[in-house]
Amino acid sequence: MKAELLVEGATILTMDGQWRAFDPGWLAVKDGAIAGLGPMPAPGGLEAGEVVDGRGMLCLPGFVNTHTHVAMAAFRGAGEDRADRLVRFLFPMEKALVTRDLVREASRFCLAEMARSGTTTFADMYYFEDEVARAADEAGMRAVLGETIVDFPSPDAPEAHGGLAYAEGFIAQWQGHERITPCFAPHATYTVDPDVLVAIHGRAEALGLPVLIHLAETEKEAARFKVSHGSAVRYLDSLGLLDPRLVAAHVVYVDAEDIALLARRGVAVAHCPASNAKSGRPIAPAYRMREAGIRLGLATDGPVSGNGMDMEGILGLYPKLQKVLEGRREVLSSREALRAATLGGAEALGLAEKTGSLEPGKRADFLLADATDFNMQPVYDWYATAVYAMRPHNVRQVYVDGRAIVRDGRMTTIDEAQALAGMAGIADRCRDQIARLMREIQ
Amino acid sequence: MKAELLVEGATILTMDGQWRAFDPGWLAVKDGAIAGLGPMPAPGGLEAGEVVDGRGMLCLPGFVNTHTHVAMAAFRGAGEDRADRLVRFLFPMEKALVTRDLVREASRFCLAEMARSGTTTFADMYYFEDEVARAADEAGMRAVLGETIVDFPSPDAPEAHGGLAYAEGFIAQWQGHERITPCFAPHATYTVDPDVLVAIHGRAEALGLPVLIHLAETEKEAARFKVSHGSAVRYLDSLGLLDPRLVAAHVVYVDAEDIALLARRGVAVAHCPASNAKSGRPIAPAYRMREAGIRLGLATDGPVSGNGMDMEGILGLYPKLQKVLEGRREVLSSREALRAATLGGAEALGLAEKTGSLEPGKRADFLLADATDFNMQPVYDWYATAVYAMRPHNVRQVYVDGRAIVRDGRMTTIDEAQALAGMAGIADRCRDQIARLMREIQ
Repeated sequence: MKAELLVEGATILTMDGQWRAFDPGWLAVKDGAIAGLGPMPAPGGLEAGEVVDGRGMLCLPGFVNTHTHVAMAAFRGAGEDRADRLVRFLFPMEKALVTRDLVREASRFCLAEMARSGTTTFADMYYFEDEVARAADEAGMRAVLGETIVDFPSPDAPEAHGGLAYAEGFIAQWQGHERITPCFAPHATYTVDPDVLVAIHGRAEALGLPVLIHLAETEKEAARFKVSHGSAVRYLDSLGLLDPRLVAAHVVYVDAEDIALLARRGVAVAHCPASNAKSGRPIAPAYRMREAGIRLGLATDGPVSGNGMDMEGILGLYPKLQKVLEGRREVLSSREALRAATLGGAEALGLAEKTGSLEPGKRADFLLADATDFNMQPVYDWYATAVYAMRPHNVRQVYVDGRAIVRDGRMTTIDEAQALAGMAGIADRCRDQIARLMREIQ
Repeated sequence: MKAELLVEGATILTMDGQWRAFDPGWLAVKDGAIAGLGPMPAPGGLEAGEVVDGRGMLCLPGFVNTHTHVAMAAFRGAGEDRADRLVRFLFPMEKALVTRDLVREASRFCLAEMARSGTTTFADMYYFEDEVARAADEAGMRAVLGETIVDFPSPDAPEAHGGLAYAEGFIAQWQGHERITPCFAPHATYTVDPDVLVAIHGRAEALGLPVLIHLAETEKEAARFKVSHGSAVRYLDSLGLLDPRLVAAHVVYVDAEDIALLARRGVAVAHCPASNAKSGRPIAPAYRMREAGIRLGLATDGPVSGNGMDMEGILGLYPKLQKVLEGRREVLSSREALRAATLGGAEALGLAEKTGSLEPGKRADFLLADATDFNMQPVYDWYATAVYAMRPHNVRQVYVDGRAIVRDGRMTTIDEAQALAGMAGIADRCRDQIARLMREIQ
């Protein structure tokens, strides 16, 4: 066989159904897919266009970040620690400042941070989502991108629910792209009218696309739907929205009945431990959702909510918080945590056929992390090392479809200096307005 | 004035009592102390032996890590997620494997990880603590080092409580060192006899030294002393142990009465959010302890407990968990969190006269972090950037007493290749024994 790429000598955690690991192992890429992998040595007849010396490296499936708002990188660190921050600060700030330009520049910038720390696939919901698609395509990343639909005028749609028409145009433009899945993203149960939610669901079904939504995220939302329908989850069920297309982010305020319902309906969950905690929310019962059989991925949430966009931070936090919630250190092993950041995320986004684990036939989406650095040593348990000790800088090479989008820790697809300069320009334009808004909500 | 070192153009968060920040600012070092600092430009008459271009850098006081067991780096990642891990796995493993050699090699290794991520001062408790002292001295770090005393034979003392005699020797050898404070570290309320606790307290008082202890850390401990004395804290108070010399690590199982008592007695707390969470413990009421006026610092705990030894990970986790515990996002601002990792830690260790903030006359212990990297941008709130967005690799230069112990992200004081090779040798010697012990506790 003649491969395009051959990685030799790395420790490979495949994250497949049998938890296979090769230490050391080899992995070959052909036509952007994984052609084969196994324990060293690589088969004799295997030739490769490029051979990567993986000795001392940990090879993992690329991370899947199941819920982000990448363009909000433009506002990272603004308005921290304010009560009711979303409604009092973020919505007005977005109204005042979000433009097509901002989304383009901030997305490109944010994708660099994400890719450099090992993320190969992400799900995003925002405005001007076609610009996010362009940035993701340029970066060479895989993405599920939902245009946001809300019941008030938004930066890219002057009428209430105008995002629906915007989404239709965006989807028509991008559907069928090999790496980008365009879709609908109704903002939340409390910001989209029920008839519009039903219409979105119908369109998504007709087009065969996912639906991204914030669900059971805020206390106010929980209180409102508790009165009317028992819970926000049950409200969505009453509209027929709960199905395997739905990727619900947060899912904090849920009881056992909600969890059983989500499992029965096949809804996927994007678990956002950092942003939920930073908002002072209860710990979402992610372990119990997994035990109930729910497809569950991990997510940073947007840079305004979780700040750091690296999945390393989320990986360590996820099991820690579940252990706290359950009161037992035995809960949620390192390998289960790593699974959520890789295959679990791919399953949640409906991309498990393509990515999330290292198996022959899947797309060659993987990272190589330098395991010889101080913080990664010594190693007695590779899963624990990946989950609790690895940090963003350990990631040195990142591949999507077998193409190196990060080499030696730097983007190959995006001009880094240009991306940084683009963000600096955006931030300069935002600074005064943000300061003014902050004064208003003092 | 003629300074040894002048940093120009960095954003300086002084963490002093007035929250002064200079953006951009200058900082001059003379005789290892901060000779002056302020907003740019630096005074005209100021000459310097070395001028550091701080443009694009964030300058912070070096981090203070108030509770570690650095030599346990030798076991990082071993025996994860096992119930009753300390007693069933860690104690037997230490008995079998901890030698003077191991402590020397593992300490040197671990200090490199800590220093490179910005820690300048740490508190440690372990066996062969004189080897930790040697490693800290060699690394050029500041440290409070407690020899562990337990009621069973330990790696460096064959008799129960033999650590007390060992500690006396260690203290005699190191007391008076300008950067190293040797002291006593009774392991915990439940592993040291009451008469020995009282004897240690007396000796610490006579010698003018701190006492380091694990307190109110485990459920078993909490249950035991609840019956006998109301709580572990009240048990220690009944022995007269609670005073401003005591640095109590963890302090998880405490009620309002305990918090008031700790505050009244002036006890300091080393808060370990990562290791407590990873152990499935409740979230320690750190915010309430601070509100009660308790001196509180942050800590990684040992590498077996918290795994990552960078304070960046702890910095982000601390406010997140307190917001979860209190159920409010407004609780614990970024600047309060950063204070705990710097001046708060110095206060807890009784070193606030010397370190923890950037003020004239204090020792020149500080870090420079590259704020131009993707994950640090944009900046609207430097405290939020430092707490939630900064990652270990952003730290480029680290100074203790004005001496660069880290330059361009590399140790200047420790041979990194040698430190890595030393750890590799130790890990190779431990591997079989660890595997055997793991099988025994299956």
